[in-house]
Amino acid sequence: MPAVLFRSDNDSSDEWRAALTKRIPDLDFRVWPEVGDPSDIEFALVWKVPAGAFDGLPNLKAVCSLGQGVDHLFADPDFPKTPHILRIVDPWMGRAMAEWVLLQVLRFHRQGPEYEQFQRERRWIKLPAPETATRRVGILGLGALGTEAATTIAALGFDVAGWSRTAKGIANVTSYAGPDALDAFLARTDILCCMLPLTPETTDLINADLLAKLPKGAFVVNSGRGAQLVEDDLLAALDSGHIAGAALDVFRVEPLPGDHPFWVHPKVQVWPHVSAQTNAESGADQVAENIRRIFAGHPPFNTVDPDRKY
Amino acid sequence: MPAVLFRSDNDSSDEWRAALTKRIPDLDFRVWPEVGDPSDIEFALVWKVPAGAFDGLPNLKAVCSLGQGVDHLFADPDFPKTPHILRIVDPWMGRAMAEWVLLQVLRFHRQGPEYEQFQRERRWIKLPAPETATRRVGILGLGALGTEAATTIAALGFDVAGWSRTAKGIANVTSYAGPDALDAFLARTDILCCMLPLTPETTDLINADLLAKLPKGAFVVNSGRGAQLVEDDLLAALDSGHIAGAALDVFRVEPLPGDHPFWVHPKVQVWPHVSAQTNAESGADQVAENIRRIFAGHPPFNTVDPDRKY
Repeated sequence: MPAVLFRSDNDSSDEWRAALTKRIPDLDFRVWPEVGDPSDIEFALVWKVPAGAFDGLPNLKAVCSLGQGVDHLFADPDFPKTPHILRIVDPWMGRAMAEWVLLQVLRFHRQGPEYEQFQRERRWIKLPAPETATRRVGILGLGALGTEAATTIAALGFDVAGWSRTAKGIANVTSYAGPDALDAFLARTDILCCMLPLTPETTDLINADLLAKLPKGAFVVNSGRGAQLVEDDLLAALDSGHIAGAALDVFRVEPLPGDHPFWVHPKVQVWPHVSAQTNAESGADQVAENIRRIFAGHPPFNTVDPDRKY
Repeated sequence: MPAVLFRSDNDSSDEWRAALTKRIPDLDFRVWPEVGDPSDIEFALVWKVPAGAFDGLPNLKAVCSLGQGVDHLFADPDFPKTPHILRIVDPWMGRAMAEWVLLQVLRFHRQGPEYEQFQRERRWIKLPAPETATRRVGILGLGALGTEAATTIAALGFDVAGWSRTAKGIANVTSYAGPDALDAFLARTDILCCMLPLTPETTDLINADLLAKLPKGAFVVNSGRGAQLVEDDLLAALDSGHIAGAALDVFRVEPLPGDHPFWVHPKVQVWPHVSAQTNAESGADQVAENIRRIFAGHPPFNTVDPDRKY
């Protein structure tokens, strides 16, 4: 029987071995660097591997990302296009991220940062409360994650729109599509939430130019990828008062360096990339099924288009 | 035409005058202490008035609380039982409170206090993430506000139960009813949210004895009334580590005194009674209709049972 190679510094090989062998009892599950005979490896289950990691695996048929995003694979310019490229589309991850984004939206909507500051000053001050229906939430990216967050937030009565490459028909979510619609989307957005995949087009997208197109006092929530946000531009917009606050789960360098100004900025909440942690038990069903299909020579699902890169 | 008397230190008479005269253009709306001829007053619209405030109003037919709660009226032992006692059941208030309670539940569920502490220490630490379906949220009080909060939280996948005087049949919310069921309700509750009305039975309900029956590491959210929580008992339970955190919107003395330990307690978030602020525009329809009914001698709605006191 062919073998699976697991390689990640971020995920537990023990948890994945247990979850997968529960579903495929005779699975030959190897953890890098214990590759054994490289010609046995047909399926690689990986997260952020170095360039060249798949060299010398002559029978590799599929590479599966241990998460929703696959940008880490395409960071290697020589990433082979011959095998199938797969990802995990985990409903639990979608729920987890929608939940985290909703928490940030509610905290900004309910003036959490102001009340936290009043508490530090021991001041009992009531602010006028904006109505939920007047809060305009804007979701950058309406893939599986963005769509779930958008519908969850809309169900609570917020005024929700989304921006994506192609137009989407999602109930109670206004669709803005393509580069020409971006300015109009930004002009109507009080709380911007990014869940875009990382591609050349989305790298550095949230920069000074984009932030200036949001209304004064807008908030920024990023659980997409760190490289989508120009961090110095956000700091400048926070310090000028144009952006009122930010909640960030992803950063250009992770872990966030100890001397990064985000750690101590009074308007920034730092989260350590935990908005949607992959869960071996909930993702194992689909990975096991794809392993079965690859080993049997059948087409897998949850495939990634190597040209679109997501 | 008979007159309305408005008296509140917490609500804007200008906003209420504008909202009500938009609906009843010839309304005789008087703001205390400019009562005029006391025999004109048939309807009083009030919040936290002193004992005896309704003496000398011989034709008073109804007293309407400027909020969902009416405990402030019954704080006066001589409160007259002859007129109708009314309250505002404002759907906007229900949404606002459900939103605020959900924010607190999500913050505790997603380990917000821990990550805020890690940020202060500039430490990048990922905690294992409990699944939503395993978080047991318990709602004390399933009236209009508690029911809306319970269903909103249940819709996000939490394991929700409620405790109330009489059993309730609410989809996806397990019902515990009466004093005999309280211990079982507490034993299965990780995040306790109080939205009870204040009555003699609920005064001091959240005390050392009750807190000890929650599982170790439970959280307490109070947006009911301050007098339901024995504040020293909560402080002791937080300091012993039995209770992991609290989010409080109501207090025994409001505004919370500047030297109160809650202001500086690292496990307590203080909110200045803003979980569901009354909104004149959204509450005016029902108040105007009740004014019309009282002036016409017809039975009003949103009435309070003077014996149950809610």
